[in-house]
Amino acid sequence: MTIEQIFLFTLEMIGTVAFAISGIRMSAAKHFDWFGAYTVGLVTAIGGGTLRDLMLDCPVFWMSNFWYLGVTGLSLVAVIALKKYLLRLSTTIFIFDTIGLAMFVVIGVQKTLLFGHPMWLAILMGTITGALGGILRDILINDVPLIFRKDVYATACIAGGLVYWLMMIAGFNEIVQGSACAVTVIAVRLLAVHYGWSIPMLRNFPDDNDGGQ
Amino acid sequence: MTIEQIFLFTLEMIGTVAFAISGIRMSAAKHFDWFGAYTVGLVTAIGGGTLRDLMLDCPVFWMSNFWYLGVTGLSLVAVIALKKYLLRLSTTIFIFDTIGLAMFVVIGVQKTLLFGHPMWLAILMGTITGALGGILRDILINDVPLIFRKDVYATACIAGGLVYWLMMIAGFNEIVQGSACAVTVIAVRLLAVHYGWSIPMLRNFPDDNDGGQ
Amino acid sequence: MTIEQIFLFTLEMIGTVAFAISGIRMSAAKHFDWFGAYTVGLVTAIGGGTLRDLMLDCPVFWMSNFWYLGVTGLSLVAVIALKKYLLRLSTTIFIFDTIGLAMFVVIGVQKTLLFGHPMWLAILMGTITGALGGILRDILINDVPLIFRKDVYATACIAGGLVYWLMMIAGFNEIVQGSACAVTVIAVRLLAVHYGWSIPMLRNFPDDNDGGQ
Repeated sequence: MTIEQIFLFTLEMIGTVAFAISGIRMSAAKHFDWFGAYTVGLVTAIGGGTLRDLMLDCPVFWMSNFWYLGVTGLSLVAVIALKKYLLRLSTTIFIFDTIGLAMFVVIGVQKTLLFGHPMWLAILMGTITGALGGILRDILINDVPLIFRKDVYATACIAGGLVYWLMMIAGFNEIVQGSACAVTVIAVRLLAVHYGWSIPMLRNFPDDNDGGQ
Repeated sequence: MTIEQIFLFTLEMIGTVAFAISGIRMSAAKHFDWFGAYTVGLVTAIGGGTLRDLMLDCPVFWMSNFWYLGVTGLSLVAVIALKKYLLRLSTTIFIFDTIGLAMFVVIGVQKTLLFGHPMWLAILMGTITGALGGILRDILINDVPLIFRKDVYATACIAGGLVYWLMMIAGFNEIVQGSACAVTVIAVRLLAVHYGWSIPMLRNFPDDNDGGQ
Repeated sequence: MTIEQIFLFTLEMIGTVAFAISGIRMSAAKHFDWFGAYTVGLVTAIGGGTLRDLMLDCPVFWMSNFWYLGVTGLSLVAVIALKKYLLRLSTTIFIFDTIGLAMFVVIGVQKTLLFGHPMWLAILMGTITGALGGILRDILINDVPLIFRKDVYATACIAGGLVYWLMMIAGFNEIVQGSACAVTVIAVRLLAVHYGWSIPMLRNFPDDNDGGQ
């Protein structure tokens, strides 16, 4: 591995840990046991990339590398052992989560382009890589996906993908494309949380009681 | 594209729009934002075909054609802009939804046969193509799948698949097979809604409080 | 088929029936109709192996053999026709369910190794084969997955996988490996139910109301 690859892999592991901790914390709120918490943490961390790889018809990324399962296990141990301390680190975890999100989007975009797919699909796959894990987490804990009601999590992914596209059109190389994409994801998310940005809500249909159909 | 292909693709897009609108409307009842509504609409429209293609191990149909994502976006715009008007179109949407269901079943059956699989699998894949989207929609909005309790949605799919089989045994060509299948799906669904047909319910086990294990 | 293959296939069908009945019974508690119960039963029985095969990128096991769908149908008929009688067979069903679990784990482990994957992945795939069906069942009926809160279902799978590994390291042949794995799964589950073993629960974070994030 080159220094650059080690750097990127470290960022990805930071994201994996942050995503796993998000799943483990929400499992704790649902009184899951350690196994349940580990499973939810793992699905949060690798669920998006797994569906992406199945749809791209390429080997599922975490199957050739024990690290993803390993750091999820370490995340669980950390949450169990350092709970009180972790509470004071909420901001740090949020930063890690945002860095992870950015990494996941860049990875999803680049992998899709690598297989010769068009840019619109790459943006979608980047968004799936970043945002699906949290949706699956909420399904597993039997909540309505948080992301459908607030937060501009997915919007940040899409914005990052669009900036990737712009940089590509502008003729920049892959490193600039990826970096600009990552910075955009991080910036949009931080700004959104800071200023309370949100996407407009869909108002209910007056004659729907429970959604109809 | 031949005239016939354009006709079939148009029917498929009509179905996609109808399925997407069903997902978007139910998202509105759950107070989702636009992103959540778009996601639920998209999954409702393409979810069944996606699992089918993953299991058939062939390229996922919507990945090579932006139209599916595009018309889902147009459906969202339509629901936001024309809400009051759409309410008066409930019957039209129901008809579109039924046409779409029929198209999805025919596509699922034919694609499975194309890959050399037996007829029972083709019927199952046709049913998955038509009915899974609505199940995934209900999982995403955290409801019990509607289709498990009422409606003969899936039964219409299975009936269509069986008629496809009959026409095949009787020696008719693919156009007759597909048309007879589609007409059957539409007829069974319309008749079922009109006469209030339903499938018998499974009565509870007396000693199960919450289902046991 | 050799006698041995018939024996193993019979065990697998016993497991399929037991898993399907578990899904059908929980559907009854949710007032599903026959179609809903069949679907939930089927997903409980084949869901784990389906995701395993998609991730291993090999043909999905039940697509080349009607028996899985067939015995699920027979399970539904049995539940409808023999409900009162089945209630008295709870222990028998539990035994069948445990035998099925053991079979599913062994199949998952061996299939993964067959494709040249490392042992840690085989253990994970064995666990997914055995335990995912029940998780999908609980998602379909809109409950929090039972397995995340109690039962050492998944732990039994993992223990079985580890014993498989030990037998492999110790140089035993595949029959011994598989048998020792199956016996371990069965023993751990029976002992866990008998002695009320459980995995420690994750305590809630004091500042999380509904999980935060």
